[in-house]
This record gives sequence, C-alpha cells and structure tokens, in this order.
Amino acid sequence: MADEHGPVLDRIAAMPGYEPGEQPRGVGLVKLNTNENPYPPSPRAVDAARAALEGGLNLYPDPSSTALREAASACYRVPVDNVVAGNGSDEVLAMALRACVGQGGRVVYTTPTYSLYSTLAATIGARTRELAWPEQLSDEDSGDGVPEGLAEAAADADLCFVCSPNSPSGRAVSLEAIAGLARASRGLVLADEAYIDFGGSSVIELIGEHDNLLVTRSLSKSYSLAGMRLGLGLGQAGLIDALAKTKDSYNVSRVAATTGQAALEDQKWMRANAERVIDTRERVTAELRARGRRVPASAANFFWLDCGREGGRPVFERLRESGVLVRYFDNEMLGGGVRVSVGTDEQMDRFLEAVGD
Amino acid sequence: MADEHGPVLDRIAAMPGYEPGEQPRGVGLVKLNTNENPYPPSPRAVDAARAALEGGLNLYPDPSSTALREAASACYRVPVDNVVAGNGSDEVLAMALRACVGQGGRVVYTTPTYSLYSTLAATIGARTRELAWPEQLSDEDSGDGVPEGLAEAAADADLCFVCSPNSPSGRAVSLEAIAGLARASRGLVLADEAYIDFGGSSVIELIGEHDNLLVTRSLSKSYSLAGMRLGLGLGQAGLIDALAKTKDSYNVSRVAATTGQAALEDQKWMRANAERVIDTRERVTAELRARGRRVPASAANFFWLDCGREGGRPVFERLRESGVLVRYFDNEMLGGGVRVSVGTDEQMDRFLEAVGD
Repeated sequence: MADEHGPVLDRIAAMPGYEPGEQPRGVGLVKLNTNENPYPPSPRAVDAARAALEGGLNLYPDPSSTALREAASACYRVPVDNVVAGNGSDEVLAMALRACVGQGGRVVYTTPTYSLYSTLAATIGARTRELAWPEQLSDEDSGDGVPEGLAEAAADADLCFVCSPNSPSGRAVSLEAIAGLARASRGLVLADEAYIDFGGSSVIELIGEHDNLLVTRSLSKSYSLAGMRLGLGLGQAGLIDALAKTKDSYNVSRVAATTGQAALEDQKWMRANAERVIDTRERVTAELRARGRRVPASAANFFWLDCGREGGRPVFERLRESGVLVRYFDNEMLGGGVRVSVGTDEQMDRFLEAVGD
Repeated sequence: MADEHGPVLDRIAAMPGYEPGEQPRGVGLVKLNTNENPYPPSPRAVDAARAALEGGLNLYPDPSSTALREAASACYRVPVDNVVAGNGSDEVLAMALRACVGQGGRVVYTTPTYSLYSTLAATIGARTRELAWPEQLSDEDSGDGVPEGLAEAAADADLCFVCSPNSPSGRAVSLEAIAGLARASRGLVLADEAYIDFGGSSVIELIGEHDNLLVTRSLSKSYSLAGMRLGLGLGQAGLIDALAKTKDSYNVSRVAATTGQAALEDQKWMRANAERVIDTRERVTAELRARGRRVPASAANFFWLDCGREGGRPVFERLRESGVLVRYFDNEMLGGGVRVSVGTDEQMDRFLEAVGD
C-alpha cells in the first residue's frame, strides 16, 4: 500500500486503455465509425436467440461451445477440434497472446493496424516491434505482399499479427505472403480475418500445413452480430487446445452460442448482405475518385479517405456537424485521412453530400 | 517449429485445463452438480433480453457497460466508477490476475477452494502458495476466521483469494478476517462473493477503506443467470480502472448487459428465490443430520456431505445411477465427501431418497 498504484502492476498503471470507437447514445447520427454492418443479422439467428431465452438461462452453457464449433467446422471445412469459440474475436486474440507469448515475449506487426494489438501486448507485458507500412494510396487492387523486413522480424518473434484485410486501409495480404511468414517464423502467425467476407483470400486452407498459423474470424461484421460478441479461432488441434486453456471457462453464453450457430448455418443471408456492402463500397469509392479524391482500393466493409492537406481531424469534425460519424485516428501516420465504414446506400448518399467535393 | 509444442509456451502446454462440472446434454437427471439456481431468472430480466434482440444486434455494445454498472452502483450503494462488469465473474478474476499479478507473481489461497484460481495462476505463469484448510465438520455456524498463517502469506503475495462463502464447504469468512488480510497485505485481497446472497457478510462496505480490496459478484447463482455470463468487480476507482484495461474490449454483449441491469433492478425476485434455496438447504441438512450424517453448516446454495469411510466417489456414482448428479472432487483432502447443490424441494426429496440412510 506504500506504492502509488496500490496493488496494481506498474506497467498496467502506466498503459493507456484501448480506445474503442465512439458509441453515441443519441439517435440521428449516420454511424460510419466502427465498421458495423448496416443490415440486420439473419432472422434465423434472432429466432434462435429468442428460443434460448425461453428456458435454461439458470444453467451454465456448454463450456466448449460444441454446437457452435460444429457449425463452424461445417462452414469452414475443418475438423471441429481445429476451432475455438470466443466472446468476440478479441478474446481469441487475447488467448493467442496468453498461450504463445507471455510476459517479455515478442510481438510484431505492421502499423497502422488494429490498435488492440498493442493494447493486448502491453497488458501481458510483451515487447512490441512495429514496422511502419503506410497506407498505400494506389487505386489499384494491389497490396498482395507484406513489407520487406516483416518475415525477418517474424522469425524472431513469438507472435506476428497480420490483419487481412487490414484496418484502416482495407488492404488485403495474399495467401502466399502469409504462408511465407508462417514458414519463416518459429512463433505464431495470426491472420486476423475479421473483414475477409468483404474481400481478400482466406488462409484457412493453410492451417493443415502450418502448426503455427492461427486464423481469427469475427461474427461482428459480415454476420451483423457485433452486439452479441462472437468470434472464432481456427488452427491445428494442438494450438487450439492451448488457446482453449486460456479462455474464460464459460466464455460464450447460451444465447450467443445458439445465435452464432444459426448465423453460420445461414450463409446465404450473410453473403447477400456482404455483397450489398461491397456494391455500395465500390459505388461510393468510384464516386469519390470521380470527384478527384484519393481512396485506396479496399477489400473490407470500410475505406480510407485521404484528406490531403486538410488533414483527417477537420474532415471528421465537419462530417460530425453534418450528422455523419466517421473515425479519425490521432496518429501521425494517419493524420491525413478518415476511415469510413460502408453503410446503406441511403447513409452513404448522406455521407457523399456531407463530404462535398 | 522445432519445438514439440509449436508456438505454444511450455507452461501452457504442460498445464491441465480447468475442469468444469459436467453439463449433461440428456434430460431427466436431477442436476445438483454446478451450483445453479433451480428457479428461473426475473421475468423482467428475460423481457429485457427479448427487447435487446429486436434491433441493434448489428451494433457494438457500450464497451463500459455503463447502464449495467449504474444498476450495480444503485444496488450495492457504491459510486459507478467503483464497478467493472465482466463476462461472468470468472473474467473479473482473470482481470485481477492480469492487473495485479503478472508472470512470476505470487498468489495465495486456502485449499480446498474454487479450482479456477490455480488454473488462472498457471495460465499467467504466477507462483501459487496453497494453505491447507480442511473443510470443518462442525454443525455450528462458525468459520468466521481464516487459518493461521494466511495473513502472513498474504503479506508476501501479489494476490490473496478468499472465497466467501467458500466452495465446496459453504463456509463464510468474517468481515473482520478479510479486513485483517487487506491490512496485512500490500497485494490485492480478492473476496469472491459468488455465493454471498445465500449467507455470510459482504465486505463491499470495506472497499472505501482499502485500496487493495476487490469484491467479485456473480449473477450466475442468486440471479439465476449462469447461462448469460455476468459478473461484477467492486473496488476503489484506481483499481477498477486498472482491471478495465485488461478486460476484453467489448466484454459484455448488448443482450447480457440489458438482462443484467433488469435483474439487478429486481432485487425482490432474487431475494425470494435465495430465501427458498436457503429454506430448502436448512431442511435438507437438518434431515441428513437427523439420519446421523455429517453436514457442515453452509452459507451457500450447496452443502458438503461427508461420506465417511465410503468416500465421495462411490456415493457420487450411486447417486448418478439413481439419476441424481452431484459433484465429486478427485482430491485427497476432499476424498471423503460430495458437494450437493440445493435444488427445488422436489429435486432434494429425490436426492434424499437416493442417498439413503
């Protein structure tokens, strides 16, 4: 108690917490800031959730989420013991750090990327190496490779994060590049495929070849279930077993497990919504480019809008005043733009009007 | 990849996972093995869950679970910044280890107790010190103190778990004893009050006096919400801030948060069910004692049945054959008994019949 922070570890007291995108309580804002899906989840998933409320809430869920994992197994064509379920894919990312890194371990990733990676590493006391990989401003669908030096850095690391498609650029990394990282490294290569249903090539087919490859999936984006918290980790059985030891013991509720199972079983609904989002993304980016704006090709349900000399913050503020909420990052490398989630066509028309020429 | 475990840390590969109580898929068993509440949750809580499904599942939840924490604040009469919400109190226990212990840190607790404590310590790579404290077999409501040596051990530890009422004994620890531990230690004293609504004195009123005291609460037992995954941590704001940095970013779903809020607001429902469980517990333990059985006084929604020379396992097996599922622990100190959750009066009559004289 003599310590300034009481019983809290110095490094936890010193670290900033993760800053999630704003979740405004008010209504009326066009919310394009946290990469949510503007369309509702499958009615079959909502029906399943409703049924789960009709009895059994007093009983613990299946700690292994077996039925949910069986649905994922069928959907992604992998054995059921290659799947772990999480309370959002964020929990699966945290499991990976606990199982494969530990305090003092080494984590590598390119920046900018999902800012939770650095928070998770700080939480566990791992050392991070960040390789600058500025958002490329090509309009072409490129971004297959990874920056020079990443394979070398991964070879020395306990965990290498690869977000594909990446945020905030929407740039996808090729299957070959991720396979190369897995070959180069003794540590874990974690392919975060939260946005993969909107573009890019999944590396799930590679997990049989690499015992150090973990693929994470989210049901928050393409399945429209951000509010339910559901994610998956896919990898070889030994790796999955290790991750499962580090999860919360009953980490997926009865309601979430049932909902996720039904959502995975309704691929048609998910694909239809993903295609609508892709179509809208392409229409809006084409329109912005026609206005002379720089918008890199995106494989995700958002895109990066280069704001040039004006910078990201003023554009963010101007849009907010017009009732359109996008995300601005207070980061040197990202100072020059905003990330815009793809909403409905109607919402994006409001965005296009507000952003001006 | 040269390593035997691939990218997995040696200590994770070597540790056993947490063994939850059996969740049988079949029906017909009287399930008295995982301390669930036999009564349903508040209809107001279920209505709130249903309403949460009607829209907004595509949107992220409030990452801070503000409305849920406000309900807890009103219920437990503490400031809202003294409350953190978790995906079950298990997540709050894990947060405490991440925020206050870290790899190589020291954790102390008496045994037998909740077996997750040792799993969580192993996950994080902490060292554990276990002080044997056999279940006392007094019929009297005693168990105020803590074993000699615990305060001394806590003084040297980064975290001291005190489960009150404890499992599997149902023994409660006094407020004075926990205050003494908090005074003696520089580390965190974690009072796990998962079962407190069934007996014992809460130490929530002490958190203002000790910056190193954390109280955890579960909505799984007294609120009948094991299937929804909801828990709380209560402590001073600095401690709670630190814990919140180590939680999953959106750890409580929209449905769970809304359900938990409504459940906390319906104290009358919770108290009525807790009283029914307490009445049944007292009736059944009195009946067992009248048959000459040894049953220590319990302040929880379960009790420990001393099985004497026969031992716990044969009794567990005999009961299971009769369709009654209790919990048997494969542990030397516990070899001589079984833990029996308190069900409905009807369920307990089946248990009394099956257990015999």
